[in-house]
Amino acid sequence: MPPTITDNQSHDFKAHYELAHRSPLQDDETDDAYVHKITRYSDGTVKLRNSNIELMDQDILYHLALGSESHDLHEMFGDVKFVCMGGTPKRMENFAHFMMNEIGYKLPAGTQLQDISAYSYRYSMYKVGPVLCVSHGMGTPSVSILMHEMIKLMYHAKCKDPVFIRIGTCGGVGVEGGTVIITEDALDGQLRNSHEFTILGETIHRPAKLDKKLARELKSLASADDPYDTIIGKTLCTNDFYEGQGRLDGAFCEFSENDKMAYLEKLRDNGVVNIEMESTIFAALTHHAGIKAAVVCVALLNRLNGDQVNAPKEVMHEWQQRPQILVARYIRKVLSQHGQLKSLFGHQGSIKSPRRFKLVQQESQAHE
Amino acid sequence: MPPTITDNQSHDFKAHYELAHRSPLQDDETDDAYVHKITRYSDGTVKLRNSNIELMDQDILYHLALGSESHDLHEMFGDVKFVCMGGTPKRMENFAHFMMNEIGYKLPAGTQLQDISAYSYRYSMYKVGPVLCVSHGMGTPSVSILMHEMIKLMYHAKCKDPVFIRIGTCGGVGVEGGTVIITEDALDGQLRNSHEFTILGETIHRPAKLDKKLARELKSLASADDPYDTIIGKTLCTNDFYEGQGRLDGAFCEFSENDKMAYLEKLRDNGVVNIEMESTIFAALTHHAGIKAAVVCVALLNRLNGDQVNAPKEVMHEWQQRPQILVARYIRKVLSQHGQLKSLFGHQGSIKSPRRFKLVQQESQAHE
Repeated sequence: MPPTITDNQSHDFKAHYELAHRSPLQDDETDDAYVHKITRYSDGTVKLRNSNIELMDQDILYHLALGSESHDLHEMFGDVKFVCMGGTPKRMENFAHFMMNEIGYKLPAGTQLQDISAYSYRYSMYKVGPVLCVSHGMGTPSVSILMHEMIKLMYHAKCKDPVFIRIGTCGGVGVEGGTVIITEDALDGQLRNSHEFTILGETIHRPAKLDKKLARELKSLASADDPYDTIIGKTLCTNDFYEGQGRLDGAFCEFSENDKMAYLEKLRDNGVVNIEMESTIFAALTHHAGIKAAVVCVALLNRLNGDQVNAPKEVMHEWQQRPQILVARYIRKVLSQHGQLKSLFGHQGSIKSPRRFKLVQQESQAHE
Repeated sequence: MPPTITDNQSHDFKAHYELAHRSPLQDDETDDAYVHKITRYSDGTVKLRNSNIELMDQDILYHLALGSESHDLHEMFGDVKFVCMGGTPKRMENFAHFMMNEIGYKLPAGTQLQDISAYSYRYSMYKVGPVLCVSHGMGTPSVSILMHEMIKLMYHAKCKDPVFIRIGTCGGVGVEGGTVIITEDALDGQLRNSHEFTILGETIHRPAKLDKKLARELKSLASADDPYDTIIGKTLCTNDFYEGQGRLDGAFCEFSENDKMAYLEKLRDNGVVNIEMESTIFAALTHHAGIKAAVVCVALLNRLNGDQVNAPKEVMHEWQQRPQILVARYIRKVLSQHGQLKSLFGHQGSIKSPRRFKLVQQESQAHE
């Protein structure tokens, strides 16, 4: 049986065992080594825990509008090192442009970024050299679909040791709006460090484990000059924004303000610093695939003070850039360690003088 | 205690009771009457099961980019009778244009439909007179957020007895691609006719009941001339598209093809005719709000024959119009019963002769 079983509640043991009784290892401590062995080829490229895929004539990634035979996925995505995900298409498009600047990635003259998955009408995907920026929608099922297809994409593209990072927004618990929170452990509604799956009618749990070393590395990149705090803590993942997060302002509310406050304080006592809606599935599926992953969110409010998000638009906009700034520092650091930042910066850009560029634009417009 | 409790498993009784012990009725049979009483004012306008909302200075519907004090919601939405929801912004935009034609709704000269929720970057919303067309994303949490805000929108707008209809796609179980399926009962992964909520850490179930009369009425509008079947049956709602629906082609697969087929056949033996990812929450929240609701989906494949969706794009496009056609028949029928179709058709359109209109367009283009 696979080591992940011992992470689960005895309640779910039988189902999990029946589903996964084929692997040879017994020892929980060998978990990481075991997962690495079955999820990587010797050159570091991604290996799937599903032997059906290589037997298929073609594998259509419906929700990405990509296919293993219609597209040369290795040619298109083989250089991807970082997969960054966030809720909305708009945020991920902004992040792609931000990263383009941060890593000095230059597009050929007369080109612009294109939404690779536009024809799926589901998710949006932008590629900036080694950085893939993808929207995942709201809630764990939406993330689940995307994760299956992104992991298969890594396999088809022969990506080497990709790192997945979720960039999100959240409610803080005892933490002020604007604080950047790196998730240490993702907890479900019952405060379990796992995600519950129903497979063929059986309920199983998979550990919602993130990479602790990556979390510490991200934390170390927070600067003393940042005019905000960057912390590590536990993240509660819920299936709803209103009743599920103890809000009093949904269409329904069958508890009192006192009940709500007691609940939020219980969360805080358990080390929970923020609440969002995607972390357990993101952690569980990356861990199951042996992919190093992290979740970095910015708090939009302190839930101990209220339910409605009231910060002005400009403030919220600046807050949402904070996780992006931290992740950009990490990506720059890794690329520069591998000597790849220089090669990207080496490309000749199209704008020689921003001042003269603007003058030419203005003059051109005047002739309209 | 409210009558809904008796629909739940004894396991969840305590939590549900603690959350909802304030209502006076005891009898399950009075369920509908009880729900109607607490969800409608005497003039039929929507009443909320949350007294906090009317005490708030303003209610921001974040994910719709609307607010109770920033917008005159009664003026904007007071005439809404039908709220139609579907997964993608694109499908709902197409549906809005389709409905415009179906009910003969004319826009003032020089105007076009606008995405009312564009600035939420989450959902898209189009309004065609009494028909509101909204995208809900993928999975129950995404639908949950939207439902809370749509129900609150109905309240703020003082809508009278609105009907909610979900238009979707699904996998068929023993049902061929292209078949239109009206949901009789929505079942969760354990085949329970309810949706599980975690509220303040407690697990409760709410019945996933749809309006049986509305389902029969929709069925009666299928035409003998339709070159496809329209059926009523049970719908399985899952939290994932791959493992959660017994697919062999996800990033992971820990069961055999035999296990999968045994599971799908078990579903069929239980009366399940299709599988999708939104019906239980849609049914549970509309029922809890006393809103008449239906789910109409088209099957994209018969899961007993495979996992991948292989129908050509044009065929799929035509299939996706089928639920829209059925819902349009229903809306036309209701509007015409109330004499409202004629008044809509009464508006003078801008195009007197489509042939001449096209000639003018062509001539104009030639002068470019």
